[in-house]
Amino acid sequence: MDTLIKNGKIVSAQSTYTADILIRDEVVCAIGTNLEHTFSLKEETRVIDATGKYVLPGGVDVHTHMDLQAGPCRAVDDFYDGTVAAACGGTTSIVDHMAFGPKGCPLHHQLQEYHGLAKGKAVIDYGFHGTAQHPMTAEILDELESMIQDGVPSVKVYMTYDFKLEDDEILSVLKRMKELHGVTAFHCENHQIVEANRKKFPQEGKTGPYYHAKSRPNLAEAEAVRRILYLAKLAEDAPVYIVHLSCKESLQAVEEARAMGQKNIFVETCTQYLTLTEEEYKREDGLKFVMSPPLRTKQDIDYLWKGLENGEIQVVATDHCPFFFEKEKQLGKDDFTKCPNGAPGVEERMILLYSEGVVKNRITLNKLVEVACTNPAKIYGLYPKKGVLQPGSDGDLIILDPDKQHILTKSDMHSAVDYTAYEGVLVTGYIEMVMQRGHMLAKDNQFIGEKGAGQFIFRKPTT
Amino acid sequence: MDTLIKNGKIVSAQSTYTADILIRDEVVCAIGTNLEHTFSLKEETRVIDATGKYVLPGGVDVHTHMDLQAGPCRAVDDFYDGTVAAACGGTTSIVDHMAFGPKGCPLHHQLQEYHGLAKGKAVIDYGFHGTAQHPMTAEILDELESMIQDGVPSVKVYMTYDFKLEDDEILSVLKRMKELHGVTAFHCENHQIVEANRKKFPQEGKTGPYYHAKSRPNLAEAEAVRRILYLAKLAEDAPVYIVHLSCKESLQAVEEARAMGQKNIFVETCTQYLTLTEEEYKREDGLKFVMSPPLRTKQDIDYLWKGLENGEIQVVATDHCPFFFEKEKQLGKDDFTKCPNGAPGVEERMILLYSEGVVKNRITLNKLVEVACTNPAKIYGLYPKKGVLQPGSDGDLIILDPDKQHILTKSDMHSAVDYTAYEGVLVTGYIEMVMQRGHMLAKDNQFIGEKGAGQFIFRKPTT
Amino acid sequence: MDTLIKNGKIVSAQSTYTADILIRDEVVCAIGTNLEHTFSLKEETRVIDATGKYVLPGGVDVHTHMDLQAGPCRAVDDFYDGTVAAACGGTTSIVDHMAFGPKGCPLHHQLQEYHGLAKGKAVIDYGFHGTAQHPMTAEILDELESMIQDGVPSVKVYMTYDFKLEDDEILSVLKRMKELHGVTAFHCENHQIVEANRKKFPQEGKTGPYYHAKSRPNLAEAEAVRRILYLAKLAEDAPVYIVHLSCKESLQAVEEARAMGQKNIFVETCTQYLTLTEEEYKREDGLKFVMSPPLRTKQDIDYLWKGLENGEIQVVATDHCPFFFEKEKQLGKDDFTKCPNGAPGVEERMILLYSEGVVKNRITLNKLVEVACTNPAKIYGLYPKKGVLQPGSDGDLIILDPDKQHILTKSDMHSAVDYTAYEGVLVTGYIEMVMQRGHMLAKDNQFIGEKGAGQFIFRKPTT
Amino acid sequence: MDTLIKNGKIVSAQSTYTADILIRDEVVCAIGTNLEHTFSLKEETRVIDATGKYVLPGGVDVHTHMDLQAGPCRAVDDFYDGTVAAACGGTTSIVDHMAFGPKGCPLHHQLQEYHGLAKGKAVIDYGFHGTAQHPMTAEILDELESMIQDGVPSVKVYMTYDFKLEDDEILSVLKRMKELHGVTAFHCENHQIVEANRKKFPQEGKTGPYYHAKSRPNLAEAEAVRRILYLAKLAEDAPVYIVHLSCKESLQAVEEARAMGQKNIFVETCTQYLTLTEEEYKREDGLKFVMSPPLRTKQDIDYLWKGLENGEIQVVATDHCPFFFEKEKQLGKDDFTKCPNGAPGVEERMILLYSEGVVKNRITLNKLVEVACTNPAKIYGLYPKKGVLQPGSDGDLIILDPDKQHILTKSDMHSAVDYTAYEGVLVTGYIEMVMQRGHMLAKDNQFIGEKGAGQFIFRKPTT
Repeated sequence: MDTLIKNGKIVSAQSTYTADILIRDEVVCAIGTNLEHTFSLKEETRVIDATGKYVLPGGVDVHTHMDLQAGPCRAVDDFYDGTVAAACGGTTSIVDHMAFGPKGCPLHHQLQEYHGLAKGKAVIDYGFHGTAQHPMTAEILDELESMIQDGVPSVKVYMTYDFKLEDDEILSVLKRMKELHGVTAFHCENHQIVEANRKKFPQEGKTGPYYHAKSRPNLAEAEAVRRILYLAKLAEDAPVYIVHLSCKESLQAVEEARAMGQKNIFVETCTQYLTLTEEEYKREDGLKFVMSPPLRTKQDIDYLWKGLENGEIQVVATDHCPFFFEKEKQLGKDDFTKCPNGAPGVEERMILLYSEGVVKNRITLNKLVEVACTNPAKIYGLYPKKGVLQPGSDGDLIILDPDKQHILTKSDMHSAVDYTAYEGVLVTGYIEMVMQRGHMLAKDNQFIGEKGAGQFIFRKPTT
Repeated sequence: MDTLIKNGKIVSAQSTYTADILIRDEVVCAIGTNLEHTFSLKEETRVIDATGKYVLPGGVDVHTHMDLQAGPCRAVDDFYDGTVAAACGGTTSIVDHMAFGPKGCPLHHQLQEYHGLAKGKAVIDYGFHGTAQHPMTAEILDELESMIQDGVPSVKVYMTYDFKLEDDEILSVLKRMKELHGVTAFHCENHQIVEANRKKFPQEGKTGPYYHAKSRPNLAEAEAVRRILYLAKLAEDAPVYIVHLSCKESLQAVEEARAMGQKNIFVETCTQYLTLTEEEYKREDGLKFVMSPPLRTKQDIDYLWKGLENGEIQVVATDHCPFFFEKEKQLGKDDFTKCPNGAPGVEERMILLYSEGVVKNRITLNKLVEVACTNPAKIYGLYPKKGVLQPGSDGDLIILDPDKQHILTKSDMHSAVDYTAYEGVLVTGYIEMVMQRGHMLAKDNQFIGEKGAGQFIFRKPTT
Repeated sequence: MDTLIKNGKIVSAQSTYTADILIRDEVVCAIGTNLEHTFSLKEETRVIDATGKYVLPGGVDVHTHMDLQAGPCRAVDDFYDGTVAAACGGTTSIVDHMAFGPKGCPLHHQLQEYHGLAKGKAVIDYGFHGTAQHPMTAEILDELESMIQDGVPSVKVYMTYDFKLEDDEILSVLKRMKELHGVTAFHCENHQIVEANRKKFPQEGKTGPYYHAKSRPNLAEAEAVRRILYLAKLAEDAPVYIVHLSCKESLQAVEEARAMGQKNIFVETCTQYLTLTEEEYKREDGLKFVMSPPLRTKQDIDYLWKGLENGEIQVVATDHCPFFFEKEKQLGKDDFTKCPNGAPGVEERMILLYSEGVVKNRITLNKLVEVACTNPAKIYGLYPKKGVLQPGSDGDLIILDPDKQHILTKSDMHSAVDYTAYEGVLVTGYIEMVMQRGHMLAKDNQFIGEKGAGQFIFRKPTT
Repeated sequence: MDTLIKNGKIVSAQSTYTADILIRDEVVCAIGTNLEHTFSLKEETRVIDATGKYVLPGGVDVHTHMDLQAGPCRAVDDFYDGTVAAACGGTTSIVDHMAFGPKGCPLHHQLQEYHGLAKGKAVIDYGFHGTAQHPMTAEILDELESMIQDGVPSVKVYMTYDFKLEDDEILSVLKRMKELHGVTAFHCENHQIVEANRKKFPQEGKTGPYYHAKSRPNLAEAEAVRRILYLAKLAEDAPVYIVHLSCKESLQAVEEARAMGQKNIFVETCTQYLTLTEEEYKREDGLKFVMSPPLRTKQDIDYLWKGLENGEIQVVATDHCPFFFEKEKQLGKDDFTKCPNGAPGVEERMILLYSEGVVKNRITLNKLVEVACTNPAKIYGLYPKKGVLQPGSDGDLIILDPDKQHILTKSDMHSAVDYTAYEGVLVTGYIEMVMQRGHMLAKDNQFIGEKGAGQFIFRKPTT
């Protein structure tokens, strides 16, 4: 069945204009004026009037952790629950960061595992990022190429946690990925600084969640960011993608490197680093916000919004990785170091960017599309299939009512977890309808898609 | 008659994709795949196959001087000859900088004059920039508003030449234009430095055209740029548009101001400052290149291309203002100060940006569209009517053969002047066809439009 | 008579150490330990025990205006009163900025005039800065050389006021002074911005002294500073000395230029810009503080102290130029533009730098000596005769009790004017004794020197 | 016996002036004019006429490795040979970096060892830097305090080599040393990058000394520098001293940190990084130059000289650590990784700084004194006993003939090693005489001091 969205204000990264969109055979077939009367519409065409509404490309969240095994805990959302939440929040594509595998396992071990986890469950389209883990052998370096041949042209490297890579390993990965035109993503935190605090703080009786934040200071992140940029420079400007950059000092490190001429640096932040502060950790339910990097300060938030506006940050993602507050999170009730890291967020991203960003005049609506749809799709090889509404692109879109207000609350949310980090927040703007490849996914906050309808996105190298 | 451009690679500032464009009633009606078979085409539709070709928005040149009276000389191209040249070169809109009027005349004096000069002659659509001249009285400041009501939301200020504004006048204009949401454009050169050299050099026997360049050093421009930015800052970040920025030091001045947080700074450079150097002045026919600011060095060229790529420069225009080499330019043969300033260029801009910029990997094709079409249209209120190909926009476009090579030579050019500044330059890329509002303007380098078919573009404030 | 200062803590720009100083024949003859017993002291040697006290070089104030004719008013202090005030405040050398002369007068006109004003009156040593005034003819440019031959290797240029130089004239002066190895000093304010405000504000009823500050905004100064730096760059890094730099934006302009590699930039600020803010203008006696540039804000003060500490500012002077509050200053009681610009300060400089700077840990005592004694002497050619205590230097020194507190009040001051700008300020530190060329000048705040004992300092080019 | 140096041009970090110096009881007793006639000279006073010569404070080299055990090799110069070389080269104080001790040994283990090595041998005064080595236990951290009580208020940390500290250990040291007001010195190179190259290069047949340079790229050093600065920032601007900074990128890292407000950063470079380039490694005897960091390029040299001039670099030392070219260095003849790191230099420093720096107008003679004498003494707690000529300071000085030229050659050198890195270099300037505490150490390039006359310098914390 064809779908015609008429009279909406179509929003791209560069402009906003009123036109109709016709979706046929899952892709955008035409964008034009008055298509109803000029186009050879099929009889069964579904016509949706979007007058007064915005029509955006479906959101692209390139940082999620569905069904993640993290130490003894498993993230609450599997690929069904998690993608239902994404869909209802206006996100129609994810690229999921796969978990570490068994020690020494090949990269394909996890790829195979994740295909199994997602297939038949995901309700939106999905891709995977490879995950590099220590030791980084010559075999694994070779395997980066076959991962790309299997549609995975990006790999994530951790600078902290058990399987973190050493600097020389990182350099090897950067060099190899550069040859392959792929992107290497980095979780940047100085492992030793953080670990020393995690050891010392509990000994000093500093066990509350606020000390989680204090144990991972801004400079521990900034140092790791700057180090990666040096390593990438050494690898002749190999492409680097910094995930969940959370603070001013880190972005300044990026700005320094760019000012000295370094290319191919991509920066992602997440919704939570744009909206919440470390004050949350002082709440009784502060464990809900235990994630890494931790929430920062108002000053950091301001700097990050400015970074979005002036183009220093390219992407906003979520790092969606929920654990039950009443269950797994309670492991940390006497010691924050025992609390699993992560929080939900995939559902709240688009509306928060709109309400906190666009409505509050921090970014334009075009910038929202750029950082939440177009740029992540371009950087990670989903473009122009995803991230844009133009003829030939997938019919993935959102219809947004710009003025309708509502209050975010767990009972309206779709993640399987038992809380939202934004409980009680009044937002302006309402995602009326979400569509993937021309199929209805969500309407009025109800999921109306189909379990397992999501398809693997075979991505190609981009750099 | 409708026009269908099919199978072309449509280029916007953000993406390149293959699709068909249907133009109806002078505007883009639809962009889609396979429109020939899916759209209710009218019988008389003109179908053009653009397979393998790029389809770009028509060029927007926001800095031309048609029919300009400059002291004793008049620019060679009137609105007919000049716009024919523009059309054949792929530019479908100009915003012309009006000449100074008689001392003390109101702004509308020149507007009326220019409507008279353009109407019935111009073959492409056109707008005008107002021209501020000393003395800047309260009456003239008031008139800025009615100029906007008449479709002229921009005004040009000269920091050199006889009618240059003083700093306090500039401040008044900036403040008033800010209130009106208009843009103030500046020709930035320190008048006193330049004039001192123009007086001194001939006395020292330095009369050749090379001394034209030496009389207007980089720092004389950079100082004026920096001064304007301070004045704009003082006017609370009033919008400032620097015309024909030509050198590294000037762009550094802009970068300094932006780094200190100043907003609303727009920068234009011109084709010649991206391609030619002061070495040209040493040629026997060096007078051909006498323009202000003068041509600079290779180092400046490199810095400007980098500025385009990294977004510090928003616009490339031409400052088209030709004088006959064999006639007016000869006034300067014994003394460069007698030579009228200006050169042709409106026809060469698009192909040079493609050949020197895109083909040589200095900028992407999307960046070309951004700086030569989209940005100038956005900044100066022609957007989205001009500068973009999307439903509802004017059917102004170029079909570009990316590979065909040819040599630039005067005999193929359409300006009434007797030379091109790029004689003998081999270019890659060929503008096969140019269309305005769905009407054929040029094909295979022949003008096939209609005299007087150009329309006045009623522009609106944008800032 | 020889003088031996024993056991004092001698302070230089680089170190502080305990030793004795012997002054013989007006100069420092020896610095050593235990000189009383090791040196062949003459019988009549005056021995002063400075145990527990600091011994500093006498202060060098390179920006004063004694006996200045400013429009209809004359500065209150002639060379006697003014230098008595200086002496009691610990300043033993001044370089006075001469007033404008009659239109078209040669530079020596004023030099002769000032020799007349100072001779027989000054109680401390003194030099003069030349004053450039419009029109800057070839004859005057030539005269710069003979001024140097007469001991005046520096010339001041005004960018505002009636006799301000135009940019081309400034460039000529800079080039000529560079050839002569002299220094050009600049009063930097954008004349047109300031004048427009001075015309407009009274029309708007803004006549109080606070509007004096508002009429001369930070950016009007910063623009002029940046412009001078471009002109100096154009003159191949000709030496530039910015007088009374008063705000953050101006110092940032200097930092920008230095970061881009420009050399030979010297910066002076004054005591008042380090200690007082524009809030003073809101006082009933706000006219006391009418000076140009005006007092600024706390933020500026902080930036200037930081600039002293990190070496971006080289000199602290006073711009001493008092007018009676009850008389000349009252000319401005209904209109700030009628108020003569200037305030006293030569007496308060040293103790305020100590109390506000050293005691409050903003600068070290060595830095105080550097910016108030050594640097001004070095830059302006008084060194090593002045500005340092080393064998062969003049026996100019201060004995400072570091801990004794007192309150600044007019009745203890020596300027002929009827107020101090620091009335009621509690200061830590007390200047016990001041000596010039081995002669007692002041003791316990009493002037005990001799009228006319001051000598003209024949300065030499330094750059 | 007293010594009177008369009529020399005494040079300090801030000025140059002609005066006499009297040394009595090993310290400077007086500086003055005409002391011979005014001072109560003892009969046996040695009078030295320094007319036309410069008199400088004795050099302070705060980075030497006498008698160092480095893996299987021992540095050639013991405390006798090495300090004789220093003395003849105009250096009268060293602070030696002690070697690593046995695993787990307390800091005092090495201190005791080094007192043994130096006592009775050293001919000039000497201090020691502590050496931190992994593991950095709580006991060792405590011991930092008692080291200070024993006159060792500085400790060196290696970021490469076997006993390198981990980042968390570094942080602990920085915090502790800050509390103790001591200085932590860092050898900055990224261990993993370097080690990976040292493993890989030989496998690829890259065994020549040139690959030593390639295995330790600029960015490996710069990364480590930037990392240390982050760690120091995290320790609330704990004092950091970067030893032997060798390249542009590293100094830029320092400049970045300072621009962001970080305090207490001290930078040392060495003579060789100011004078020699990596081209030396291509010589047949390239192994002579194997040291870490390696020699860099002309561009780096230029940046470092500029850094000295503009104050970004505070100290020039030598890292003196010679191995016989014909013996130990030959271990590397088939594989650079086997070559012991280090080269002689303590003797050549002062004259090269004069000839390459002052004579070639890169720095002033005052700057030479600042970076080679005064600053190192101030930073490391030798001041004002060492590093300056003022009453009370030790009578350590050099008499320098500014014009006499000679050619550096091994046969004129005093190190026990078999080469100089500067063989055949023509230098301007000649160190005629060197004195310590009033005793003759060297004259006309002959050592005339006394074995074992050097004293341990008990240093005090300075920050």
